Amino acid sequence: MRIQVIAQFFGVLPVIGITSKNPSHMSFSWLSLRTIYSIIIVIVTGFQAAITVYHSFSSKIEFAKTVPVIFYGSNFYVIFAFIMLARKWPDLMEAWKRSETCFNGFQTTLEKRYLRRRIAMIAITVCVLSLTEHFLSLATLVHWAKVCPDKDDYLTAVFKQEFTQLFSITSYSLEKAIVAQFINTICTFVWSYMDCFVMIVSVGLSTGFKKINSELVAYKGKAMSEEFWEAHRTAYRGMCDLCEFVDNHINRITLVCFSNNLFFICVQLLNSLNPKDSLTHTIYFWFSLIFLIVRTLAVSLYAAEVNEEAKVPIHVLRVVPRESWFLEVKRFYEEVTNDTTALSGMKFFFLTRRLVLSVAGTIVTYELVLLQFHQDEELENKDPCGPIVMA
Amino acid sequence: MRIQVIAQFFGVLPVIGITSKNPSHMSFSWLSLRTIYSIIIVIVTGFQAAITVYHSFSSKIEFAKTVPVIFYGSNFYVIFAFIMLARKWPDLMEAWKRSETCFNGFQTTLEKRYLRRRIAMIAITVCVLSLTEHFLSLATLVHWAKVCPDKDDYLTAVFKQEFTQLFSITSYSLEKAIVAQFINTICTFVWSYMDCFVMIVSVGLSTGFKKINSELVAYKGKAMSEEFWEAHRTAYRGMCDLCEFVDNHINRITLVCFSNNLFFICVQLLNSLNPKDSLTHTIYFWFSLIFLIVRTLAVSLYAAEVNEEAKVPIHVLRVVPRESWFLEVKRFYEEVTNDTTALSGMKFFFLTRRLVLSVAGTIVTYELVLLQFHQDEELENKDPCGPIVMA
Amino acid sequence: MRIQVIAQFFGVLPVIGITSKNPSHMSFSWLSLRTIYSIIIVIVTGFQAAITVYHSFSSKIEFAKTVPVIFYGSNFYVIFAFIMLARKWPDLMEAWKRSETCFNGFQTTLEKRYLRRRIAMIAITVCVLSLTEHFLSLATLVHWAKVCPDKDDYLTAVFKQEFTQLFSITSYSLEKAIVAQFINTICTFVWSYMDCFVMIVSVGLSTGFKKINSELVAYKGKAMSEEFWEAHRTAYRGMCDLCEFVDNHINRITLVCFSNNLFFICVQLLNSLNPKDSLTHTIYFWFSLIFLIVRTLAVSLYAAEVNEEAKVPIHVLRVVPRESWFLEVKRFYEEVTNDTTALSGMKFFFLTRRLVLSVAGTIVTYELVLLQFHQDEELENKDPCGPIVMA
Amino acid sequence: MRIQVIAQFFGVLPVIGITSKNPSHMSFSWLSLRTIYSIIIVIVTGFQAAITVYHSFSSKIEFAKTVPVIFYGSNFYVIFAFIMLARKWPDLMEAWKRSETCFNGFQTTLEKRYLRRRIAMIAITVCVLSLTEHFLSLATLVHWAKVCPDKDDYLTAVFKQEFTQLFSITSYSLEKAIVAQFINTICTFVWSYMDCFVMIVSVGLSTGFKKINSELVAYKGKAMSEEFWEAHRTAYRGMCDLCEFVDNHINRITLVCFSNNLFFICVQLLNSLNPKDSLTHTIYFWFSLIFLIVRTLAVSLYAAEVNEEAKVPIHVLRVVPRESWFLEVKRFYEEVTNDTTALSGMKFFFLTRRLVLSVAGTIVTYELVLLQFHQDEELENKDPCGPIVMA
Repeated sequence: MRIQVIAQFFGVLPVIGITSKNPSHMSFSWLSLRTIYSIIIVIVTGFQAAITVYHSFSSKIEFAKTVPVIFYGSNFYVIFAFIMLARKWPDLMEAWKRSETCFNGFQTTLEKRYLRRRIAMIAITVCVLSLTEHFLSLATLVHWAKVCPDKDDYLTAVFKQEFTQLFSITSYSLEKAIVAQFINTICTFVWSYMDCFVMIVSVGLSTGFKKINSELVAYKGKAMSEEFWEAHRTAYRGMCDLCEFVDNHINRITLVCFSNNLFFICVQLLNSLNPKDSLTHTIYFWFSLIFLIVRTLAVSLYAAEVNEEAKVPIHVLRVVPRESWFLEVKRFYEEVTNDTTALSGMKFFFLTRRLVLSVAGTIVTYELVLLQFHQDEELENKDPCGPIVMA
Repeated sequence: MRIQVIAQFFGVLPVIGITSKNPSHMSFSWLSLRTIYSIIIVIVTGFQAAITVYHSFSSKIEFAKTVPVIFYGSNFYVIFAFIMLARKWPDLMEAWKRSETCFNGFQTTLEKRYLRRRIAMIAITVCVLSLTEHFLSLATLVHWAKVCPDKDDYLTAVFKQEFTQLFSITSYSLEKAIVAQFINTICTFVWSYMDCFVMIVSVGLSTGFKKINSELVAYKGKAMSEEFWEAHRTAYRGMCDLCEFVDNHINRITLVCFSNNLFFICVQLLNSLNPKDSLTHTIYFWFSLIFLIVRTLAVSLYAAEVNEEAKVPIHVLRVVPRESWFLEVKRFYEEVTNDTTALSGMKFFFLTRRLVLSVAGTIVTYELVLLQFHQDEELENKDPCGPIVMA
Repeated sequence: MRIQVIAQFFGVLPVIGITSKNPSHMSFSWLSLRTIYSIIIVIVTGFQAAITVYHSFSSKIEFAKTVPVIFYGSNFYVIFAFIMLARKWPDLMEAWKRSETCFNGFQTTLEKRYLRRRIAMIAITVCVLSLTEHFLSLATLVHWAKVCPDKDDYLTAVFKQEFTQLFSITSYSLEKAIVAQFINTICTFVWSYMDCFVMIVSVGLSTGFKKINSELVAYKGKAMSEEFWEAHRTAYRGMCDLCEFVDNHINRITLVCFSNNLFFICVQLLNSLNPKDSLTHTIYFWFSLIFLIVRTLAVSLYAAEVNEEAKVPIHVLRVVPRESWFLEVKRFYEEVTNDTTALSGMKFFFLTRRLVLSVAGTIVTYELVLLQFHQDEELENKDPCGPIVMA
Repeated sequence: MRIQVIAQFFGVLPVIGITSKNPSHMSFSWLSLRTIYSIIIVIVTGFQAAITVYHSFSSKIEFAKTVPVIFYGSNFYVIFAFIMLARKWPDLMEAWKRSETCFNGFQTTLEKRYLRRRIAMIAITVCVLSLTEHFLSLATLVHWAKVCPDKDDYLTAVFKQEFTQLFSITSYSLEKAIVAQFINTICTFVWSYMDCFVMIVSVGLSTGFKKINSELVAYKGKAMSEEFWEAHRTAYRGMCDLCEFVDNHINRITLVCFSNNLFFICVQLLNSLNPKDSLTHTIYFWFSLIFLIVRTLAVSLYAAEVNEEAKVPIHVLRVVPRESWFLEVKRFYEEVTNDTTALSGMKFFFLTRRLVLSVAGTIVTYELVLLQFHQDEELENKDPCGPIVMA
């Protein structure tokens, strides 16, 4: 079952206290080791978030200071949301399984293997790239500490620089620094995991719709009985309901995941104009920015695929011959035409292809305005014999 | 009856000249004490608004000067609109009552108590927070007068500072200052009341839809007679008509309420970058801003709930079995799908979840551009060994 | 007939070469005095537009220089479009008359008088305000010439200032100046006339829809025969077709009218921050800006009324009783729900209430950004004991 | 056949390896001379794109440096996409031909000639204007080299200036410069060709819809048999499917074509404020900008025509008499009402009239903000007796 495939991957992550991998025996316990571990992490992250808030608001507000507030704050909220989700996870998996058994022999072994491989590929790709980014970030920090010598010893300098908020409030100690570094690492991965989670759930849902679509397409243009259409409409409705059920549970996470990604893209685009002080920093910066943009695009497109697949039946329904145009076909057609079946960000927006465009448009406009300002400043001391821009 | 619950709360406010709390005996009289009191207030506020307009346009236009113009101007308009609404209030309550009696035993005592408590909670929360904000504002003013000594005595300094517009035109006198302070206090509460009013009306309307939905959900998936569907469609239509009737009477207030909130959020975000001169000011400022944002969000979400609840029947209608798919079901389905049942701002916009997003998006973009400018200025005198922003 | 009422008003304007006021005898002739006069004006305006274009592009591009280009350019185009429209005007009026005779005794004498008075009121209001603005503009110019003494005599100074574009190319002569002043006056009125024209056509169309709606509302909730519905659907369709027919002929003018108004609102908002050098200038400026905004709003709302009225039948169709729900009712309902019946700007946008909001939103955002820049500049030299902005 | 007309024109371009002009005998071969030529070009362009990327990112990021990156990068991608398209071209032409043979005697000789002439006119106009622009660009460069004397000889100076990216990495040599100039010329034409291609395909598709519409309009308001409607619905469906099929193959190219045009319009508007150093440069600049805007508008409007034509049947279906309102008419009506048949940019946006407006709106807003900044700078050193802007 697809459910297990997802649960398997999901189970290996520390934030969820699921003790069994079989959906029917799944249960959530507040006392399992995983749950306790998650709760500890959520508390420590919350503490870290509180420090950054205090640090930002106690002195003059600056843009650079709000960035860690958003970073730790949203991570804190997401880890908390994942624990809450874990409590509902067994119900969710039950519902998912039920919707699958509607179709006899829904998934062949081949299809299962294909799905498993697709999910594994997403998970592995995100993990590897996330690790690479983290190491590059450390490398940059180390390089920075070398260049700007301080009265402190080497490690102290690195940590003091990295955790300015923490050590501007409390005195420095190596233990605190190690805990802070640990939280920072966890948070970086939770952030990537969030994207990964939305992608995998989307793949699961769109596979469900694809299964129905492939059956419908097989009978495209043929005169089928009303029972055939009723059965398929019910199956389709089941998938839509599952999609909404899942969305109701994860839309908080989706919202944070999206707004977070957009916020950091804007922040990084803003930083892209600052001169970088070393090659390591340059490489890290561009790797990090491109990884972020690609990840955001990937999440958007995987999520939009659910919406795309849910609309495919239209093509079959339009060519239903006249004698086979029953009431059920009509209802089916109206449902597919009128409804928006898609993952959402707390119903504030739906993850469709159109959204991707409007988001991209906003970012590009923002970047153009940004570049414009810098262009203006450079125009003043321009060389009259400088290069002509040829479009 | 729900109507009374709202009227009760509504009746305690000075702006409405309703003399009876029972909807059937309600009447409006121009000669009641409440009406006269409201009219006096509207005149004095209008006078104050005129002074701020004169003060702003007589010298060089500045952004800071337009803020009180908007503040007093919109308050003047809203108090006036509430008096006009009071004249129609008995009719409105009659219509509301009629729409309720469509359902036999529409509201049990339990439901009534729940609704009453919900409304009371909203009203009390807004009042308490509003009071707190007002006291903080006074505290800031007092602190400011202490720090910046003047040739005037203490109280004079405070009042002269607070009512610059008034005392730059006329000479200072304590009596005038007390009246001005009184108007200022009234206006602050009218502003909060406006939000409170829209929230309570929304709760009333969405409760009506919830009642219908809960009955429909009870028969979800069952084959009901055409009469059943006709009765429920009529009841649903009645609620939609009530919603539109109410909206036609209050949409002016809703428009002012919304645009006002948005305007002051933008103003405050703009001010958020100015250095604050004291701790009291800092606390006041952030309390005021967060209160404003939360209040705006609350109004939006309560109002959007009407729209959300009006769409719930779709889920029941989609799973109506084939043999029970009568003409009335079809019409019901089409009405729910095609219509936008929601409170509006003079039909210029409808209060839906999507609106909340687009509003939030606009504010965030505005804030980002704002921060960008300040970032630019700070970049010039940047320390080369300063903190690296790690995303 | 309504047509005549419009034609009457329309006929008095120089731009149209209509020789008869009765729609059935109306004709267009290239050789009528009116047509020849219009053609002369269009040529001279085109010449003036060409001079401003040359003047703007021959030296460094500046924003201030593009304003007259847009002003004369759009006026030239509009006068040309009105002449083209005049050729089709008899056909248009024929179609309008045909659509009216569908309803027996369509317009009572009372209704005709009411419509005539409404149209006259719009026309007179716009004319009077337009004249007032023009005189204020001349007064400002005269005042300016007094204050800034020049080597030239008085009148020469005024004209040279007003027609910089013209006299920077050719030498000064009083004759040229008088012609230029004449064109300028004509253009100012054509601009107002454009708005007036769109308003009056909108009033005509929305009156047609109102007539149908008033008949439908009279039978609201009653079980009528299928013939009744067919007749009213056909009448409604006729009005929609008329609306589209009219739109196809005037949508070029509507587009220019709208974009022009928006452009000049932006320009004037931009100018609103410049210090004014005299009281006359201040009064002129604010009068002109408020007149422009009110006029734009009026055009938008009158035009949106067509769309609003075309949607009214929905309310009647929703409460049609079950036994009277014929195929024709269903088609009627679907047409009203699905179609967008409204005036448009060359089909790029439709004049609905929603448009007004998005336009207003854009202007407010633009103004906020504008104010923000000026705020920034003033922050630097701010008095620490200056006024605290209390929201 | 229309197909051939398109293929003919298409065949003369170097990027496609089609060896036969008859759709049924068309084939694609990797070894044809045309294909090999295209592959060589794609490789060389890719090489050039790589150099510009390296040049931009190796030093401080500047806006001016990203322009050639976008220029060569998008050209590289588009040439590659055209080669990929060439492989599918025979299938596409087969599908197109099939959809045409649905209608007996679909195209008369007269219609064919008209279409051929229309396509030829588009192609020739674009080519001639494109050539003119290229020569003007060379003239500007030559003029520039004359004015700013260098230690190099004349030709070297021109080339070094034009290919800064190339010769800042490798040493100068005439051979390299000639190759670079060749690629630059190719790229300029590919860019124009892209627009031309989208326009011609759009003309082809909208002609198909026009044919169906002209047949439908001939029977407007008449009571036709259900078979008549079924036949026409099927034909219409065929055209919609063809439109989607074509879109699936070319939507990558459409997306690049659109975003490229928009990007360069913004870049050029930005440059429009820089002072130009010579008359040649001024002429070249404005010619290039106006050509770009007109071309973009033309592409948008031709592509939007497909969408417009696909909606025309609504007008016929609305006036179908009651006795002829069959199931097929209803389905036809619903399909036309609900579907969006249009070319798209990878489904992110659809090319409709509304898009044109929102794009134009964005550009105008951008330009207004731009002008605003420059206005601000000029305000400081303003002459108090300078011109008054009269709106």
